[in-house]
Amino acid sequence: MSITYDVFRGSAEGKIIADKTTATLDLNEIFIETTHSGLCGTDEHYLKADMVLGHEGVGIVKAIGPKVSSVKVGDRVGFGYTHKVCTECDNCVSGWDQYCRNQKQYGFHDQSNGTFSYGAIWDATCVYPIPEGYDSVHAAPLMCAGATVWTVLTEYNVRSTDRVAVMGVGGLGHLAIKIASEMGCHVVVLSSSEAKRQEAMDYGASEYHVFRSGGQPPVDFKPVDHLLLCGSGSVDYLSLLPLMNTHGSIYPLTVAFEPSAVPLLDMVWKGVRIQGSLVASRRSIRTLLEFAARKKIYPTTMSFPLNKEGIEEAMETLRQGKMRYRGVLIKQ
Amino acid sequence: MSITYDVFRGSAEGKIIADKTTATLDLNEIFIETTHSGLCGTDEHYLKADMVLGHEGVGIVKAIGPKVSSVKVGDRVGFGYTHKVCTECDNCVSGWDQYCRNQKQYGFHDQSNGTFSYGAIWDATCVYPIPEGYDSVHAAPLMCAGATVWTVLTEYNVRSTDRVAVMGVGGLGHLAIKIASEMGCHVVVLSSSEAKRQEAMDYGASEYHVFRSGGQPPVDFKPVDHLLLCGSGSVDYLSLLPLMNTHGSIYPLTVAFEPSAVPLLDMVWKGVRIQGSLVASRRSIRTLLEFAARKKIYPTTMSFPLNKEGIEEAMETLRQGKMRYRGVLIKQ
Repeated sequence: MSITYDVFRGSAEGKIIADKTTATLDLNEIFIETTHSGLCGTDEHYLKADMVLGHEGVGIVKAIGPKVSSVKVGDRVGFGYTHKVCTECDNCVSGWDQYCRNQKQYGFHDQSNGTFSYGAIWDATCVYPIPEGYDSVHAAPLMCAGATVWTVLTEYNVRSTDRVAVMGVGGLGHLAIKIASEMGCHVVVLSSSEAKRQEAMDYGASEYHVFRSGGQPPVDFKPVDHLLLCGSGSVDYLSLLPLMNTHGSIYPLTVAFEPSAVPLLDMVWKGVRIQGSLVASRRSIRTLLEFAARKKIYPTTMSFPLNKEGIEEAMETLRQGKMRYRGVLIKQ
Repeated sequence: MSITYDVFRGSAEGKIIADKTTATLDLNEIFIETTHSGLCGTDEHYLKADMVLGHEGVGIVKAIGPKVSSVKVGDRVGFGYTHKVCTECDNCVSGWDQYCRNQKQYGFHDQSNGTFSYGAIWDATCVYPIPEGYDSVHAAPLMCAGATVWTVLTEYNVRSTDRVAVMGVGGLGHLAIKIASEMGCHVVVLSSSEAKRQEAMDYGASEYHVFRSGGQPPVDFKPVDHLLLCGSGSVDYLSLLPLMNTHGSIYPLTVAFEPSAVPLLDMVWKGVRIQGSLVASRRSIRTLLEFAARKKIYPTTMSFPLNKEGIEEAMETLRQGKMRYRGVLIKQ
């Protein structure tokens, strides 16, 4: 059975192009009618690529391939970064499918499916049930922004007794505050101005400090065990080291394309690590959805219509630094 | 009781100065007659400092303070990086005394005691019994070079099933090969030429590849889980990332003073970390000595007389890159 559905692509001119994808369901695939899509900074990076954008989707399953048994028509599911996993590589068979070694074929870079769409064909094993009562507008940003901070907070020995710093209050950072505080951590927010203090404290932060990369540590700052870099990709790492406790870990979640100047000697003197980390595995996203629903963690969102104009307006809002804090496109 | 003993200092002109230290034993201190001292690249860094050099010592306890009960006169002990620990800071009370927060007062930077000497006054809690039958010439290099690779191999989840790469076959590197192979790891040596192949394989390596920082990965190279950087401090990190397995760890054990250009984006794509690590705790050095004796791990050494001329000759040998692989100064 051939299915045709509306999608929104990037283009060489950096304009959003409304297009259609026609495809048939493979044995293990499903067709999802997209109802919600988060907007990520990565979409801006791919804006000039000829591919369907968006990787923070929620929708309703409308058709399933003949071998699909894990979801059924009518289910509400999340889908996003991972489109299909291989069954071959060490990473996919060990629960780290975000690092699929065949990701140029599978995974993120599928050209003709994405969540900026009214539909998508996806592998049935790469969608996640949305807990009942948990709103789709909240579930969508968990697919990438939430997943990215979730991996850091759950896979690298962050403990509820740790001091966890979040630098940059935006799409990722505001979720890191909400999630880490619900995990019992002492959350320390570092922001470049006073503007977001009240919100950060409302989200669960225990401390809020005005700190700019390159500047001096805040007065009487007590070092932190973990530091999630959620703001600008260009960071002066030398200025971060005084913030770190012995054995502390720095997680660059937003990174510049160029290499960064990293003071390794200071890292050695303190036993500090820099840990690369990429979104989340399928297993991990399921636990995030369950945790968010159980703990009533809701992303703070701004809504836009899921159409060409809505996408462009949302992207412009993000570009201007005015998103509070994650844009979600909603089908009208 | 006042004790006077010969010591060898650095000096502003970069010459070794024979001098004497006179001191009295505190309640918890002991006087050690130095018989052996390893030579470390760090001694070169401190050559122009007005301090007693050397931090890889072995000697015989000759006198003990009135409160000392853990060692007795006649014991053969190792001593080196840690001269005294505080009883206050989080790190000292949790077994990570190499990161003592009061280390400017205690620890490494004591000015008038060191292992380039015929004697040293040391805190009794900072010396390590040398296992019977284990030669002092072998024990000395374990105090810093051995300790440095030991912490990496024992504290950061290196498993016997892992592929462990050692880049740079020198004082640290040759010990990393010997120790990691005795721990059951698959040891992969990366060296800038073919010259050390046979030795590296004799030391326990399973693979030997010619690789220069900045170059292409060896043909058909299978990625490694851990990479210990034991060679030059100036490394092209971009060229290292293709060597790493997903979730791999890089340990910069020899580091440049200047910040390094680190490709964080590549680290994110692979979940790779860079882990700072500094020598070893007292507890850890004890386990190293036991392991080395039990597994018959012997550093490969070149001996020099423990006097001004011997120190200068050893330092010149190290400077010329001709040390195979750790210099040990021995009292005549």
